Amino acid sequence: MRVAKVAIAGLGGVGRATAMLLLSRRERYLRLYGTEVRLVAVCGSRSGLSDASGLEADRLATLQAGLSGPEFVAASGADILIEAGPSDFRTGGPGLAYIRPSLSDGRDTIVISKGALVHSGRELQALAEASGATLKISGATAGSLPTIDLLEHSLLGCTVLRMEGILNATTNYLLDAMTTRGIGFDEALREAQAGGFAESDPRNDTEGWDTASKLLILGNFELGLDLAMDDIPVEGIHSVTEERIKAWQADGLVPKLVGSLVLDDGAARASVGIKTYPRADPLAQVRGKNKAIRITTDAMGETIAIGSGTEPLATSAAALKDLEHILAARSAHRP
Amino acid sequence: MRVAKVAIAGLGGVGRATAMLLLSRRERYLRLYGTEVRLVAVCGSRSGLSDASGLEADRLATLQAGLSGPEFVAASGADILIEAGPSDFRTGGPGLAYIRPSLSDGRDTIVISKGALVHSGRELQALAEASGATLKISGATAGSLPTIDLLEHSLLGCTVLRMEGILNATTNYLLDAMTTRGIGFDEALREAQAGGFAESDPRNDTEGWDTASKLLILGNFELGLDLAMDDIPVEGIHSVTEERIKAWQADGLVPKLVGSLVLDDGAARASVGIKTYPRADPLAQVRGKNKAIRITTDAMGETIAIGSGTEPLATSAAALKDLEHILAARSAHRP
Repeated sequence: MRVAKVAIAGLGGVGRATAMLLLSRRERYLRLYGTEVRLVAVCGSRSGLSDASGLEADRLATLQAGLSGPEFVAASGADILIEAGPSDFRTGGPGLAYIRPSLSDGRDTIVISKGALVHSGRELQALAEASGATLKISGATAGSLPTIDLLEHSLLGCTVLRMEGILNATTNYLLDAMTTRGIGFDEALREAQAGGFAESDPRNDTEGWDTASKLLILGNFELGLDLAMDDIPVEGIHSVTEERIKAWQADGLVPKLVGSLVLDDGAARASVGIKTYPRADPLAQVRGKNKAIRITTDAMGETIAIGSGTEPLATSAAALKDLEHILAARSAHRP
Repeated sequence: MRVAKVAIAGLGGVGRATAMLLLSRRERYLRLYGTEVRLVAVCGSRSGLSDASGLEADRLATLQAGLSGPEFVAASGADILIEAGPSDFRTGGPGLAYIRPSLSDGRDTIVISKGALVHSGRELQALAEASGATLKISGATAGSLPTIDLLEHSLLGCTVLRMEGILNATTNYLLDAMTTRGIGFDEALREAQAGGFAESDPRNDTEGWDTASKLLILGNFELGLDLAMDDIPVEGIHSVTEERIKAWQADGLVPKLVGSLVLDDGAARASVGIKTYPRADPLAQVRGKNKAIRITTDAMGETIAIGSGTEPLATSAAALKDLEHILAARSAHRP
C-alpha cells in the first residue's frame, strides 16, 4: 500500500480546518487512491507536533513549543507539505521559508497563502520544475472558486483573451451591504469584523491588494505572464461613496471590486478597481461573501464561475482537492 | 517523437469544426505534448477519407463513398476516436456502433453525441475499464460549459448534494425570447430554426429530452448513479404560456427549463421541467443560447458555472480539451 505523509505549516483557521477535513477523508483516500494518508506533522509559528505514524484530531489541541520551521517539516519525513500560514506579498511571508526547501527537496507542495506566490512565484516554479515536485495553488487563488481549474483544465486549448474576477470576499460583502442595504462603509466593516471575515486592519482587502495578489498569481502561474505588483494599478473600494452608489443605482448599475486582465498578443494589462455592471450581468448578482470570475477565450466564448463556500471549510476543501490530484497522479504513475 | 492518430466519425457541423480546430492546433500539440497529432480518418454516414500520413483541411471537401463505419476507423490505424454523429438516446444512435469496438480495441475515445452514453453508458464504461482505454465525454455534456470538469476535477473530494442545470441552449433561447421580448413560442421557434440552432423537428429540445440526456449522463458517469430515462420525470417548455409568463413577471420570477438532481444518502431524484428563479439569482440571468449549472456540495457550498460559447466551435473545443487531457496523460505516462 502507498503511504502519503502530509505536513501542515500554519495552524490558523484554514490550517486547522484543512487538518480536520483531511483526517475525516482518510477512508476515501484509501478507497480511491489505495493510499494511506498520514498527517505526520503540524505546526504554527512557534509550536507544533509530529508523529511518523500519523496524528489524530485530538492531539492538535496540545502543541509543543519549539516544534516549528522548515527543518521541523523536513525531519517529520513528510512527502507532501500544505502551507497555510499568513500571507504577505511584500516579503513572501513566513510561507516562503517553508515552500522553498520543500520544493527543492522534491516534496509535493500545496500552497494556500498568497504571499510567497506573489513575491517569488517564478523562483518557486523553477524549484518545482528542477526537483520534479508538484506545486499546487488552488487554495491561494480564491479558494473554492474554480479559477486555476478553469484556466488549466476546463479551457485547455483555448486562448484567453480577457479575465475579470470578483476575487475578494470581504470587499464584496462590504459593497453588497452598502449598495443593497444602504449602510455606510464603517458600519459594513464593523459587521464584517464582528463576523470574523474582515481583519482589524482591513486594508489588504479594502485597498485591493488581496485582489491584485490573486490576479497576479493567476496571470503568472496560468497564463505565462511575468507580472509584478508594481505593474498593476490597484484601487480599492474607498472611493465608493453613498452619492456614487445612488448615481449608479439610478442607472441600474452595481459596483464591484474587480481584478481585470486583458491579453493582446502576449501583452497583458492588469488592473484592480471598481467596475460597474448592469443588473442583468451575472457578476452584478454575486452577493455577500461570494466570489466570481469571467474568462473570455477564443473558442469557448465567456465562461463564468461563481463560488459561495463557507470559510474556512471551502478553502481547506480547495487545498485538499489539490491533494487528491497529487494522490491520483501518484497512483497513476506508480500503480 | 510520439504520434497520435485521430479518427473523427460524424461530419456534421460539430465534426467538421472539430477537424478544422484540431488541424489548426497541431503546432500546439507538438510544443506542449511532444506529440504529432495526425488526422488519419474522417467519415460521415456514407463516405469518408483516410490517410495514415494525415489529412489536411482541403481534403475534407472530397470524401469517397463507402469509406465509413467502425471497420473503416479500425483499418485507418487511429488510436483516438472522436465520435460526433447524430444523437439518439432511444437506440444509442449510429455512435454506439463506433464507440463499442473503439473502446474494446483499447482506443481512447472522445464522445460528443449523447445517445450512446444514455443508452449504454454502463456498458461503455465497463468496456473502457476492461481495455484500459480512456473515455472522455465533455462534448456530450453541455459542450463548453464545465459540467464534467466541475464534478470530477474542481469539486473533487466534496459530496454533491444537489445539482441543477440550464443544459439546453435552444429552449433557453426560446424561453428568453418569450419572456424578455414577449413573443410567442411559434415565433421564437421560427427565429431559432432560421438561426440554425433549432431542428425542424424541435421536440428533442422542447420536450426536455436533450436536457434529460445530459442530466442522466452527468449522474451516471460522474456521480455513480444508474439512472435510466424512465426514472426521470421529463417536462418540456410547452406548458409555458403568455399568461403564466405574465404572472411570473409580476412576481419577479424568470422561468427556465432545468434538469435537477437531488442526492440523499445515495438515493437520487432526477427531474426535468420548468423552474422559476428570482431575478437576483444568477441562473435567472442566463440569456439566449447560454447554459449554466449549479452544483451544491458539502464542503464548497454552491458553485455556479455559466457558459456562452458559439456553436459548433465551443463544443468542438470541449472535445479537443478532452483530447489534450489524453495527450497530457500519454506524455506523463510514457515520457
